[in-house]
Amino acid sequence: MVQFQPILNSLKSYEAGKPIELVVREFGIDPEKVIKLGSNENPFGCSPAVVKAVQDFAPKMSYYPDDSYLDLKNSLAQKFDVTPDRIIPGNGSDQVLDFACRCVLAPGDSVLINRITFAMYRIYALQCGAKVHSTETVPHDLSAFLDLAKVVKPKILFLCTPSNPVGDALSKADVYEFLRQLSPDTLVVIDAAYMEFGKQKDPAKFIPAKEVTDLFPNVFYTGTFSKVYGLGGMRIGYGIGNAELIKNIYKMRPPFSVANLSALAATEALKNEGHVENYLRTNLEEMKRYEKFATEQSIEFIDSYANFITLFARKHGKSSTEVAQSLLRKGIILRDLKSYELNAIRITIGRPEQNEKVFEALKEEFL
Amino acid sequence: MVQFQPILNSLKSYEAGKPIELVVREFGIDPEKVIKLGSNENPFGCSPAVVKAVQDFAPKMSYYPDDSYLDLKNSLAQKFDVTPDRIIPGNGSDQVLDFACRCVLAPGDSVLINRITFAMYRIYALQCGAKVHSTETVPHDLSAFLDLAKVVKPKILFLCTPSNPVGDALSKADVYEFLRQLSPDTLVVIDAAYMEFGKQKDPAKFIPAKEVTDLFPNVFYTGTFSKVYGLGGMRIGYGIGNAELIKNIYKMRPPFSVANLSALAATEALKNEGHVENYLRTNLEEMKRYEKFATEQSIEFIDSYANFITLFARKHGKSSTEVAQSLLRKGIILRDLKSYELNAIRITIGRPEQNEKVFEALKEEFL
Repeated sequence: MVQFQPILNSLKSYEAGKPIELVVREFGIDPEKVIKLGSNENPFGCSPAVVKAVQDFAPKMSYYPDDSYLDLKNSLAQKFDVTPDRIIPGNGSDQVLDFACRCVLAPGDSVLINRITFAMYRIYALQCGAKVHSTETVPHDLSAFLDLAKVVKPKILFLCTPSNPVGDALSKADVYEFLRQLSPDTLVVIDAAYMEFGKQKDPAKFIPAKEVTDLFPNVFYTGTFSKVYGLGGMRIGYGIGNAELIKNIYKMRPPFSVANLSALAATEALKNEGHVENYLRTNLEEMKRYEKFATEQSIEFIDSYANFITLFARKHGKSSTEVAQSLLRKGIILRDLKSYELNAIRITIGRPEQNEKVFEALKEEFL
Repeated sequence: MVQFQPILNSLKSYEAGKPIELVVREFGIDPEKVIKLGSNENPFGCSPAVVKAVQDFAPKMSYYPDDSYLDLKNSLAQKFDVTPDRIIPGNGSDQVLDFACRCVLAPGDSVLINRITFAMYRIYALQCGAKVHSTETVPHDLSAFLDLAKVVKPKILFLCTPSNPVGDALSKADVYEFLRQLSPDTLVVIDAAYMEFGKQKDPAKFIPAKEVTDLFPNVFYTGTFSKVYGLGGMRIGYGIGNAELIKNIYKMRPPFSVANLSALAATEALKNEGHVENYLRTNLEEMKRYEKFATEQSIEFIDSYANFITLFARKHGKSSTEVAQSLLRKGIILRDLKSYELNAIRITIGRPEQNEKVFEALKEEFL
């Protein structure tokens, strides 16, 4: 019998946000009427110019991608003001996180993460046989990170800012001060999947990829096209670091790691920043409506620098799981944060008319 | 300074086939005139119905995929007459090969491959710290595999049939006899990327996924949409095994491993088998033209059961590298097999009019 690695026994799979297809299958709801606000996608979709570019290129799907991904890397290099050799594309930014783990981690090595954070950090680290340590607070606490780092000497430390799944964000000044004090032997991953939202709400939270990786050669900065750019389904993200770091991480990359249509869509998306700016503006306006709604209804929430908001279920009312299930039956997909050990729901900020329906539905739950 | 895994020093990157973009960049040739026969893509592209399905779905690119990939798995289950829990989708079949390696291999474990074979087997095994052993002949020699397996006790053994990059194929009877004699502790990967071509040229070479994985629980059978289905750019493949094996391999799969447009394209492709049959027929007819051409020109070649043919360069004439470079300047992309230590070129069987141009160009090289 084939023997598997013992680590498989302790690996849990990532619990993905529920797809529209599931609501259709389980509750027989018209797919066009499902309101999907569980996975922090851009509710306006990607730019129409991107849709057109993909449609035009579709007849050429049979050709393998240009494995140098030169067009995409040049476009990202221009956006971030770095040379292309400082960029690695990935099948979603999670793929470059995986590469980073496999480049650095040997069995028994330590990894340090926030208590509540993107679940894949832990999973990738465990797959490498690493030991995962975490801080104790819900939002990131850099002094706790520093104290723990001195003890566990992590090979990798993950900061997610703005943070998924709760939305808190670190200021650039605090992160730089933290990095100055941390051992330069630790690879620090700054997962900036929601950075564009944080930058817009509070410029002090903006950490520029070039600056931070110039100043700190141990920083690997990751970003994605799944959020502001509206390309969640296309699985495309990237990592930025100094050239030496990227050269090493590239060694774990398989050929053709990103589909040609995905690379094309991302390249085109970078030409249409106006679409992104409109979305960012609406997101912030609608975020304020959620905050107002929560305040009026006396629902506790976390101040969010992303495209979602986390609302706590009432201690003596319905649990987050009950609220999420109840809305699901009405065709509204939210994320229950129970698997993160929080009695809370996370809602992607939707289009104004979607949010209106969420408010109505939530009022009934939080009576 | 960040310390990387020592294994990185010895890792070589996969050398991908040259993209059209490179020929355009280097030689200023009109992209529409480039003849790309270096990467074994379907020269007729995918079915027009697939193109249309992708174009119609494009506005929904912002949604993450249904992570259960239920539609795709149901379609594959129907094609292979297995239950969906015996299938794992991948970002290309190479991704499921990677999962299999990481599930099974610990540092120091042995892996057994053919001397000349798909380069990623070695790379994935080395990434896991495994020791890679290989047989000595160019085509697969199952008795040599068996003898070596007794000595090195491989955790994984890779069979590629029909084989990339030379095109030889094993018969089902020989493979089953081999599997009966091999230790059931060894995971046997049967990479069937070109199986549809082999089946058509000689039904005795056809190894059915259900039968082989029913009979031998240690077999992991992999297939791809990159070849006959004409979806090389979309990065979509799959693995089939018994349910227990697949359950374990699934644990190494990250969420959303395949783009939603890719899963959709593959599902649609399975509804259009007529397109595939037309291609298979033309491929075989054109293969015969290549064989006739090579025989007339006294060029040594390997009998191929795939969609490509391997021609040896003459001992006292131009080297394979010189031939490949010369054709590249004319806008014809072939694969030089020098990196596989063969003085040979591999040519994808193209459309009739493309092949005509290849014959003309080759005649000048092999004078």
